[in-house]
Amino acid sequence: MARNAHPEVTEQRIIDTARDLFMEQGYEQTTIQDIVDRLGDLSKGAIYHHFASKEAILDRLVSDNMHMLDKWRSIVIERTDLNALEKIREMCRLSTPGQDHYDLIRMSMPLLDDPNYFIENMHFWSHELPARWLPLVKEGMQDGSIPTEYPQEATEILCLLTSYWLVPYFFPVTPEQLKRRIECAAIMLNAINVPLFDDEMKELALKLYSNITR
Amino acid sequence: MARNAHPEVTEQRIIDTARDLFMEQGYEQTTIQDIVDRLGDLSKGAIYHHFASKEAILDRLVSDNMHMLDKWRSIVIERTDLNALEKIREMCRLSTPGQDHYDLIRMSMPLLDDPNYFIENMHFWSHELPARWLPLVKEGMQDGSIPTEYPQEATEILCLLTSYWLVPYFFPVTPEQLKRRIECAAIMLNAINVPLFDDEMKELALKLYSNITR
Repeated sequence: MARNAHPEVTEQRIIDTARDLFMEQGYEQTTIQDIVDRLGDLSKGAIYHHFASKEAILDRLVSDNMHMLDKWRSIVIERTDLNALEKIREMCRLSTPGQDHYDLIRMSMPLLDDPNYFIENMHFWSHELPARWLPLVKEGMQDGSIPTEYPQEATEILCLLTSYWLVPYFFPVTPEQLKRRIECAAIMLNAINVPLFDDEMKELALKLYSNITR
Repeated sequence: MARNAHPEVTEQRIIDTARDLFMEQGYEQTTIQDIVDRLGDLSKGAIYHHFASKEAILDRLVSDNMHMLDKWRSIVIERTDLNALEKIREMCRLSTPGQDHYDLIRMSMPLLDDPNYFIENMHFWSHELPARWLPLVKEGMQDGSIPTEYPQEATEILCLLTSYWLVPYFFPVTPEQLKRRIECAAIMLNAINVPLFDDEMKELALKLYSNITR
């Protein structure tokens, strides 16, 4: 095989193929050899030249996906036909089951069994993620759609609840219990005037979380 | 020195001396050599025979303290002159600044920089700690002092907020911001009929948390 002058093309092929295989047969069940076999023209060594491990490929898929989601978000943020609360709800719709983004979250959960990866994510959910949502919550205070007096606190708690506490991977629950938890989160967020969870959002959350199990 | 026939006596002497030194000059500033010097009649090797490291001594102090607190708790739980909510508040008073328990929490925070220790604790705060409080919350549903419909959810969120989100070591804040956070937690818990935070408890929380900084 000729030496590849465009490593980013090879990397993208590896990522795309790995994603297909992860989706088809599950992340745990997929081996680097499966990726080699599917690609056909790359050796195991060539793959390891680009990615240190299967985890590194998944990690890249997750971060690529994060960037795509950020791009979607910035498009929604620019919309002038929605108030801030409607914008947040529209962004939540982007994470619906059936979408690649959702499947990736579900698939990458076992990565969180690694203490360092978990802490990295807990830090992200606790600080960086709230910082990304804060401008939108403040916009909602301005346009009246999120009349809270606790923007900083609300975004932090929202992220902590939706990234950790509502996730059955961390808190194993029955569907009925999950429904109660979403209801409970809705009541608490309503109490600080963050009326994110209407019936549609509750339904969406139920669908989204009920498959993110251990 | 004669060979010690009662290792638990030696261990307790090491623990007591270490605790004194940690309190006097801070955990970080205290070395095993300091403990040797203060004890006078034990070698460094003798200390390492009982404890693998300075962290192990602190870890033991923390778990001894946990047991003492559990004993206090069980005494409060048996009281017949308090309703469940008053019992929980009485237990919160046991953690007031100035008490050994409180100083130990504050001192042991840097241990949480270790990913494995953090995860162990996050698991404790998420699952075991709520399980300990749940019977008391259910008692409050019976006696009318905690008229919530979300006992499981409430104990989990209460523990998550009070063990993690309200702790300035994890979320650095000004005293003014800390006051707002306590107010925000109070409003949200009130919304699910867990009226834990009255003015006294808010004041107590402010005192307790304002010193648990990084």
